[in-house]
Amino acid sequence: MEPKATTTGLPQDTHFMEITLEAHQVVPPPPTSTFDHVKNRVKETFFPDDPLRHFKGQPVRKKWILGMQYVFPILQWGPNYNLKLLRSDIIAGLTIASLAIPQGISYAKLASLPPIVGLYSSFVPPLVYAVLGSSRDLAVGPVSIASLILGSMLRQAVSPSADPVLFLQLAFSATFFAGLFQASLGFLRLGFIIDFLSKATLVGFMAGAAIIVSLQQLKSLLGIIHFTKEMGLVQVLTSVFKHTNEWSWQTILMGLCFLCFLLVTRHISLRRPNLFWVSAVAPLASVILSTILVVAFKAQNHGISVIGKLQQGLNPPSWNMLRFHGSHLGLLMKTGLITGIISLTEGIAVGRTFAALKSYQVDGNKEMIAIGLMNIVGSATSCYVTTGAFSRSAVNHNAGAKTAVSNIIMSMTVMVTLLFLMPLFRYTPNVVLGAIIVTAVIGLIDIPSAHAIWKVDKFDFLVLVCAFLGVLLISVQGGLAIAVGISILKILMQITRPKTAMLGNIPGTDIYRNTDQYKDAVGVPGFLILSIEAPINFANTNYLNERILRWVEEHESEQDPKGLSGIRYVLLDLSAVSSIDTSGVSLLMDIRKALDKKDLDLVLVNPIGEVMEKLNKADGAKVLIGQDSLFLTVGEAVASLSCAMKSS
Amino acid sequence: MEPKATTTGLPQDTHFMEITLEAHQVVPPPPTSTFDHVKNRVKETFFPDDPLRHFKGQPVRKKWILGMQYVFPILQWGPNYNLKLLRSDIIAGLTIASLAIPQGISYAKLASLPPIVGLYSSFVPPLVYAVLGSSRDLAVGPVSIASLILGSMLRQAVSPSADPVLFLQLAFSATFFAGLFQASLGFLRLGFIIDFLSKATLVGFMAGAAIIVSLQQLKSLLGIIHFTKEMGLVQVLTSVFKHTNEWSWQTILMGLCFLCFLLVTRHISLRRPNLFWVSAVAPLASVILSTILVVAFKAQNHGISVIGKLQQGLNPPSWNMLRFHGSHLGLLMKTGLITGIISLTEGIAVGRTFAALKSYQVDGNKEMIAIGLMNIVGSATSCYVTTGAFSRSAVNHNAGAKTAVSNIIMSMTVMVTLLFLMPLFRYTPNVVLGAIIVTAVIGLIDIPSAHAIWKVDKFDFLVLVCAFLGVLLISVQGGLAIAVGISILKILMQITRPKTAMLGNIPGTDIYRNTDQYKDAVGVPGFLILSIEAPINFANTNYLNERILRWVEEHESEQDPKGLSGIRYVLLDLSAVSSIDTSGVSLLMDIRKALDKKDLDLVLVNPIGEVMEKLNKADGAKVLIGQDSLFLTVGEAVASLSCAMKSS
Repeated sequence: MEPKATTTGLPQDTHFMEITLEAHQVVPPPPTSTFDHVKNRVKETFFPDDPLRHFKGQPVRKKWILGMQYVFPILQWGPNYNLKLLRSDIIAGLTIASLAIPQGISYAKLASLPPIVGLYSSFVPPLVYAVLGSSRDLAVGPVSIASLILGSMLRQAVSPSADPVLFLQLAFSATFFAGLFQASLGFLRLGFIIDFLSKATLVGFMAGAAIIVSLQQLKSLLGIIHFTKEMGLVQVLTSVFKHTNEWSWQTILMGLCFLCFLLVTRHISLRRPNLFWVSAVAPLASVILSTILVVAFKAQNHGISVIGKLQQGLNPPSWNMLRFHGSHLGLLMKTGLITGIISLTEGIAVGRTFAALKSYQVDGNKEMIAIGLMNIVGSATSCYVTTGAFSRSAVNHNAGAKTAVSNIIMSMTVMVTLLFLMPLFRYTPNVVLGAIIVTAVIGLIDIPSAHAIWKVDKFDFLVLVCAFLGVLLISVQGGLAIAVGISILKILMQITRPKTAMLGNIPGTDIYRNTDQYKDAVGVPGFLILSIEAPINFANTNYLNERILRWVEEHESEQDPKGLSGIRYVLLDLSAVSSIDTSGVSLLMDIRKALDKKDLDLVLVNPIGEVMEKLNKADGAKVLIGQDSLFLTVGEAVASLSCAMKSS
Repeated sequence: MEPKATTTGLPQDTHFMEITLEAHQVVPPPPTSTFDHVKNRVKETFFPDDPLRHFKGQPVRKKWILGMQYVFPILQWGPNYNLKLLRSDIIAGLTIASLAIPQGISYAKLASLPPIVGLYSSFVPPLVYAVLGSSRDLAVGPVSIASLILGSMLRQAVSPSADPVLFLQLAFSATFFAGLFQASLGFLRLGFIIDFLSKATLVGFMAGAAIIVSLQQLKSLLGIIHFTKEMGLVQVLTSVFKHTNEWSWQTILMGLCFLCFLLVTRHISLRRPNLFWVSAVAPLASVILSTILVVAFKAQNHGISVIGKLQQGLNPPSWNMLRFHGSHLGLLMKTGLITGIISLTEGIAVGRTFAALKSYQVDGNKEMIAIGLMNIVGSATSCYVTTGAFSRSAVNHNAGAKTAVSNIIMSMTVMVTLLFLMPLFRYTPNVVLGAIIVTAVIGLIDIPSAHAIWKVDKFDFLVLVCAFLGVLLISVQGGLAIAVGISILKILMQITRPKTAMLGNIPGTDIYRNTDQYKDAVGVPGFLILSIEAPINFANTNYLNERILRWVEEHESEQDPKGLSGIRYVLLDLSAVSSIDTSGVSLLMDIRKALDKKDLDLVLVNPIGEVMEKLNKADGAKVLIGQDSLFLTVGEAVASLSCAMKSS
């Protein structure tokens, strides 16, 4: 009969004995001073990428060169630049310029700014970024969502039609604050703040914002003159259907034609990535074609509104227009903060995406400084908030851009436009600009990602929906705030209600795993083995106390099949407890006391470095880590204690 | 030479082979529907104690009885009540009454309310609690900190001397809101909100509040007439030394004598717990003695201020004084919220402390409902905010209280006082009340706990200091808000910067542990084994990406001593990753791609239930969990992959 007894699925006695002989001690980590502790913490918090590691052990001269290259990445790739790279960059630069010019004009109108400010913003910032930025694919310029937010927030205080100069001053000042805020985040190495915008939040937010932006285009697409100043879904649709008498069939016809043309070219480029240039040149082609049509048919006299006369010449200085005091200061800082964070998020995400594709690294904090400085310089040279735009960067990448020189080429092309070609835009119809914006923002509605999120994590999808509906029904900032709030709440809830699992032995091994997940894992008579799967801190000690005692209560009365007594030891596997605080240490002592009253022993398994250290330091907790109540693995604990149980 | 090769400290090949044979599969948890998922989540979040578990499988009649007992705990212990228990409860009840009467009068003055309101509040609420409460040791009545906050917040809007009726109305209304808020928290099972007040926060906050309360007593202790209405340390001390001409030596002398007497009795009771009654009756003895002294020497004519004439009779109804509209509503709700949370925290903490001593359970959410209802009833019967007071409950416990009947006895004693003994307090000097308050709040300064926190966790100590200084220098609510903010920030920081550790093999076993903590753990050539010690989510994916690639970079170039190639496999031990979201799944895929480019293989080890489930669901993540890239333990992974490495 004996051989049979060893196949009951429970760990075999001989196996136990063997392991007991090799039982290992849990040791606290080597002692470190409080100063070292704080130093390490600060280093991991603010310098997780260890930016100085390349400097170590280098001669002083080399350190200087590395330092300059760190501040000005252009010095890194500049010296090795050659004609072959230049050829690629020229092609890419011209391609994105053809996209940047109509988009610049359109986005400036979205922000209620004069169209030319959009072109100014595509001239200076790309030059600054080319010197300071570390991404090779980012195409810099104004972007739709930041333009939308900037315009809508400033319109709360000042009407762009009633007081255009003040509005312009506010726009440049908000840009300055956005840049200051971005650069400070990078400089103070607080870049991780943008990490709190999760992918789900962004997908929902972008989709909502894209719809809001598209709705705003109904003004130019339908030719409505008296359009609402509100942004909400309901208000815009009400306004649209209240002014049906203003709808202009000529405008609608023209809009539909160009919208179809742009969407078809977009579709072609999506299907055949090597035909990326089809959608890249389509906007400029539409602008040219529609302008010719207007001029040919004198359509401006038939209800089709056109841009009108545009100024000529390069960016005028605007530092004297920045306002650092007065009643609007609060609004300006808030606008700067929100547009700054949003445009930073887009810029960094775009940079990281393409860096991963070409496997180089972009340093988030360095990028923030680059984007921030670019906006500060921009605010002094008649530019509004700019960042790395997703659609244009994708075109830049597909067009074969090799370095930031493509930004310089684009900038030069915009310069030529500003100097010589501005009169050509006089008769460009607004309806085409609307169609260009709609086509651009449609790409922000990312249904495949939303579907993937739905499949993997329902809670993340809820966050997405909240961001989406919040943006549509409340406001752009409101939706964002709600989504971030829910995401953080989720993290806090996970901390407040950490998972506890009962572990069982996988027969024939000394591996112990969650009995819910591993159906073949079986309990060991006399033992209740629980694993706690979260840091233990003040926010969850009360819960853990109740939950662990409930586990004990539920299993206390259970008789094991052989009719032996119930549980005798409660093992807490602390492998997954990454940290503990004073409340957590008290919790363990409280549980020990509560178990003592029930005549059960508490055994801790594998407390990791920090946890072990704190248990060591707390006076009363010494009993927790004595002989027979602390083991390195569950297997060793069960083996050793089973022997003790038998012999007693 | 061969036997020597096996003692190099590295796992032995034969050992590997043996384990490979038993390699185990990682299985996803059994599939559950989204509904079950949500149900489980809701249950763990709101019903972690599974309050209905005693109801399961009971006949209907029994269920009814259990239900009534659940709502009215008095039905649970009432039927078994006997004379022996009553004797203990009478002794305890009389003891706490002797403490409650002088403290009630003093605390009401602290809240700028008529002294008699303090006695009213010691009459009705204890009766309500005796029926609804589940703690057997809680002594209910007004407490110092809630009185302080209530008074100081309401004084911002209304002066208690200029408009005493309005002030009283506001106090009762704030009490109503506090009760409503407390009961709602319990009813909605949101009790965990008070868990966010960590022990460190409370120790710092209590100490700061004790000093603020003591400073306020300088008015009566020094006999100052024109005292500041501010609460801050600086303002009070300025006011005290600006009015030195008002200091009255008779008052100071009397104050010092009684303060010494009270402190000595307190010291005696602390040293000899069986002499608890010495400090328990000292306040009443002081009141009686000082009143006799005043009457004997006609001291009220010699600069000693006395309470004055007090009303007689039981609590008048006050529901018609509750204000639910008007300009003060916002302040009332805020005051109710803050005093409600603070008094709840004290009441629940006290209840839990003594429940743990006598090993019974108090249900936090049920207690909240009891305390909340008690305050709602109180607000309609001329009582202000009450809760379980720490000092009185300790006396109650020491005096041998067995059930909530001791509260009923106390309440009856207060009733007798209200009906017949009020004229006796007419000549009680205010200075004695001040001395009673100072002696009571000194116990809130918990230096041993502060020292223990300093020893175990420096960051917790920082939270403590912030709460302490915030209360002293900013405001009571401000200090509390800062401390809670910092505590939550700490949790978020832990999430944003999770720990990663390199694991090594403990020679002669297949245990793998952190090489920093276990100095004898050695790396395995060809493998980089990392463990991630936190949930992976949007807030830390960027950090983890950078950090893991930095680990790889640092070890890539390392040659192992035998001159073999560098690392070949990167193992991520996910045992401690308690959850993952969509961003986390993307992170793992990104890391895989990045490692692919370096010609390294990514291997996952022991993803627990939820993580495995999500990896299974995500389309692109299937490659992550294929053969040879997913193992149940690090040991099995190393064994199996070593074989593969050798054979290739």
